[in-house]
Amino acid sequence: MASGTEPGMTITLAELIKRFGGEIAGDAAHRVGSLAPLDKAGPAQLAFLANQKYLPQVETTRAGAVLISPADREKVMAREGLNFIVTPNPYAYFARVAQAFIDLATPPARPGVHPSASIDPSVKVAASAVIGAHVSVEAGAVIGERVKLDAGVVIGRGVKLGDDVHLYPNVTVYHGCKLGARVIVHAGAVIGGDGFGFAPDFVGEGEARTGSWVKIPQVGAVDIAADVEIGANTTIDRGAMADTIIEECVKIDNLVQIGHNCRIGAFTVIAGCAGIAGSTNIGRHCMIGGAVGIAGHVTLADYVIVTAQSGVSKSLTKPGMYTSAFPAVNHADWNKSAALVRNLDKLRDRIKALEAALDKRDGE
Amino acid sequence: MASGTEPGMTITLAELIKRFGGEIAGDAAHRVGSLAPLDKAGPAQLAFLANQKYLPQVETTRAGAVLISPADREKVMAREGLNFIVTPNPYAYFARVAQAFIDLATPPARPGVHPSASIDPSVKVAASAVIGAHVSVEAGAVIGERVKLDAGVVIGRGVKLGDDVHLYPNVTVYHGCKLGARVIVHAGAVIGGDGFGFAPDFVGEGEARTGSWVKIPQVGAVDIAADVEIGANTTIDRGAMADTIIEECVKIDNLVQIGHNCRIGAFTVIAGCAGIAGSTNIGRHCMIGGAVGIAGHVTLADYVIVTAQSGVSKSLTKPGMYTSAFPAVNHADWNKSAALVRNLDKLRDRIKALEAALDKRDGE
Amino acid sequence: MASGTEPGMTITLAELIKRFGGEIAGDAAHRVGSLAPLDKAGPAQLAFLANQKYLPQVETTRAGAVLISPADREKVMAREGLNFIVTPNPYAYFARVAQAFIDLATPPARPGVHPSASIDPSVKVAASAVIGAHVSVEAGAVIGERVKLDAGVVIGRGVKLGDDVHLYPNVTVYHGCKLGARVIVHAGAVIGGDGFGFAPDFVGEGEARTGSWVKIPQVGAVDIAADVEIGANTTIDRGAMADTIIEECVKIDNLVQIGHNCRIGAFTVIAGCAGIAGSTNIGRHCMIGGAVGIAGHVTLADYVIVTAQSGVSKSLTKPGMYTSAFPAVNHADWNKSAALVRNLDKLRDRIKALEAALDKRDGE
Repeated sequence: MASGTEPGMTITLAELIKRFGGEIAGDAAHRVGSLAPLDKAGPAQLAFLANQKYLPQVETTRAGAVLISPADREKVMAREGLNFIVTPNPYAYFARVAQAFIDLATPPARPGVHPSASIDPSVKVAASAVIGAHVSVEAGAVIGERVKLDAGVVIGRGVKLGDDVHLYPNVTVYHGCKLGARVIVHAGAVIGGDGFGFAPDFVGEGEARTGSWVKIPQVGAVDIAADVEIGANTTIDRGAMADTIIEECVKIDNLVQIGHNCRIGAFTVIAGCAGIAGSTNIGRHCMIGGAVGIAGHVTLADYVIVTAQSGVSKSLTKPGMYTSAFPAVNHADWNKSAALVRNLDKLRDRIKALEAALDKRDGE
Repeated sequence: MASGTEPGMTITLAELIKRFGGEIAGDAAHRVGSLAPLDKAGPAQLAFLANQKYLPQVETTRAGAVLISPADREKVMAREGLNFIVTPNPYAYFARVAQAFIDLATPPARPGVHPSASIDPSVKVAASAVIGAHVSVEAGAVIGERVKLDAGVVIGRGVKLGDDVHLYPNVTVYHGCKLGARVIVHAGAVIGGDGFGFAPDFVGEGEARTGSWVKIPQVGAVDIAADVEIGANTTIDRGAMADTIIEECVKIDNLVQIGHNCRIGAFTVIAGCAGIAGSTNIGRHCMIGGAVGIAGHVTLADYVIVTAQSGVSKSLTKPGMYTSAFPAVNHADWNKSAALVRNLDKLRDRIKALEAALDKRDGE
Repeated sequence: MASGTEPGMTITLAELIKRFGGEIAGDAAHRVGSLAPLDKAGPAQLAFLANQKYLPQVETTRAGAVLISPADREKVMAREGLNFIVTPNPYAYFARVAQAFIDLATPPARPGVHPSASIDPSVKVAASAVIGAHVSVEAGAVIGERVKLDAGVVIGRGVKLGDDVHLYPNVTVYHGCKLGARVIVHAGAVIGGDGFGFAPDFVGEGEARTGSWVKIPQVGAVDIAADVEIGANTTIDRGAMADTIIEECVKIDNLVQIGHNCRIGAFTVIAGCAGIAGSTNIGRHCMIGGAVGIAGHVTLADYVIVTAQSGVSKSLTKPGMYTSAFPAVNHADWNKSAALVRNLDKLRDRIKALEAALDKRDGE
């Protein structure tokens, strides 16, 4: 068992389908207590089949039961003595059951405020909330039911946290931001820092240049809808005049930067190390790959997919998959290619010259 | 009004020009209390025109007054009944007024040390400083006038913070670093962590290799001049032997990495997710785009602009704009291009062969 | 002297070789007290020669002694009156001496638990450990001998910290993770946050799409071996079912993202801003450049080098250097090249047409 798990109780397959749906093919009284991949699962474990690649493993698995789709069930009818739970989406089912096992195994957090926390007297904390050590909550904040603030979290003035929000250690939420119900923010993330805006106030050129950058105050906030999850050390800037908007069920990985005044459409997922410059509008159900860069003031339609490490400099108005990254190859080969790319205009000119020479010949 | 703002008082245009300069064309007694874009501003709001694109909006705006340059003022002379403040740099003027409105609306921070802060007895904290909850300040640190340390900030041994420095929550400053007057550091940023330096001490090759990496102690610090602003979760490493230097009025966005022994010249701006490797020397007034990577031990002249996601592997000795990023296009089209790039030498060879064939023909 | 250093004591060259090895050529009684580059060192300083580029500086240096390899010693035999310590690896020797000087100059940390720290009563803290202000340690954690937890560190349930671990301020370690002996983690890093895993549970297409992302619980942890160093604000995700593995003596720079279920082989170094997606297996002794992106579910052989900003989308099964980044050039030139790259298929078609035309001619 992985070092992060703890022994839990077992439940019957009958109890599982009562709670999560699906149909049983096999022994409804069989008990399972944790999850494992098909090739590693034992009799007290539940496995799942979500990828055709692993279909042969169903023939040999020792799992106590297997989550399987109706179509795949037909393919493995021959497998005798194996219990199945048949469900349209085995992977999602697996995820829900896994969460339930964790909830069983995790000591329940005791509601209350740790004595070392510093809560402004103006703040009303729900009795069901769990406020950890060294947490700070400033004036006017609103803390919903069952909110969990882990050690070192800092909540600014007037922040509103919906029910069941969970902020992991050392998260900072700047003043005025709103987080909807069930929002999860991982450790070290920063919500609502100032957007990057400075007015140039310089006179003269070159060495004679004088003046300075003047900070543009960032008066908006960040408005995060329900069921959003935000990764560790990710940063989402507050808006300059209006708010930065993260719509419902957006999922953002670690070390992502989202600039001021962006809007990220509902259900969009953004992988690690991506950066989105200010005032950009990303549609719903988009998939932004790891380390993707998106310029400011552009719009992405719904259902746009940008592959890892690509750069988006203009609006993408149609759904579809977009790319601009090269895969790494042998260094020497690449250097040859890179040099030719820098001189592509010369290759083109040589083609032109050849065409002209051939044309001339044709004319002779 | 955006969720981050709070109602403030209003002031007359006459008071504005007394404080910030400019000339009034219109009713000097008109009162404004906040700022808004031209198309959204109402009679108690101040708007600005900094981009010719928005010139038509001046004809229709309901703003109480508009900040405008002398040249643009002439273009909209016809607009009757609208109040103007004429100033050479409306955008910078706007920024300064916006800050003033925020200062009016923000409850003043009460000087003092929060009882939960842990301050070494050797540290002299100015009576005007505001030290938040769960702040730690180690021995020998110097805290200037009106310094603001938000909750969870950690200040190492011997750190020097100039007057009016503001460190947002959970910022860490390692021992020995210096921050000049008015430096702002956003939440989670780390100033003065160890530079990435290890001496290889290995013997043998392949599977027979033994030995280890030996850490190079990082004995320098980070020296940050006045008026620098540093974004959330950005990291600036301490020098190996000498200091890492950030000159005056440099502006650095979120999630930027600056390696040990770098020098960033005055007034340079660095956008989010950029990474600058060690011992690199960036000139004054440079603009480094988002997610740009700059190799170690290179020098960038003053006034160099590197566009977003580009990579700099050699010194750039002349001012100008540099690029190496491709914009994302349709995935299938890109894959075709990428395959051809990897085989550019073959295309070139085919051109050579054609040239040779034609030459031969000419010789016949 | 750099602002981060403090005056230390001096020791003789004889004492140095007693402690660190090597042979003296010169005055064994000469005393040095700090380190400096060849061109800046004075008589009480130790310099080193690790790069042939600096060989001429040995002729003119004022250093009290120079660390030098046997081969280089022969090249500078002529230099009279200069003291040498001859050692096979001057750079590693330098690193070890530098650390010793720092240890001499640094006030020893006093073991004990800061009164503001919050330690669960179930946790046994070694008497030799140094627990700083506002540290939180949750139930079941194990804290080894001489462990140093700086201010604001948060240690989750059941975390195991080996002897001599040093966590800098505001580091978060999630529940169940293990850190081996002498592991160093810099400020703001997050170890063991949830991996980025969500099962799509949607029905319908386009505007009619309904459903949600279902979180995949992350039940693994992070298992970090001895002598690993991790940079500031780096994030290493816990595994989904099994653990994420960081093997011995891996060195990771700042702002690096390592996804769930990765394995990073021993002695591998990863430079700043790199991102490694989930379930990827990196070999031993690899060197991953700055801002490199590596896709999920790929394998890199031992001794693979990936140059800065390159993207790896497939497994690299042989040792060697791999690249896919372009160096930035003049913006206008680049735009020309970039346009040609997007139309490379047209250039290829023109070459084909030329070849066909020439073939036809040959046939006539």
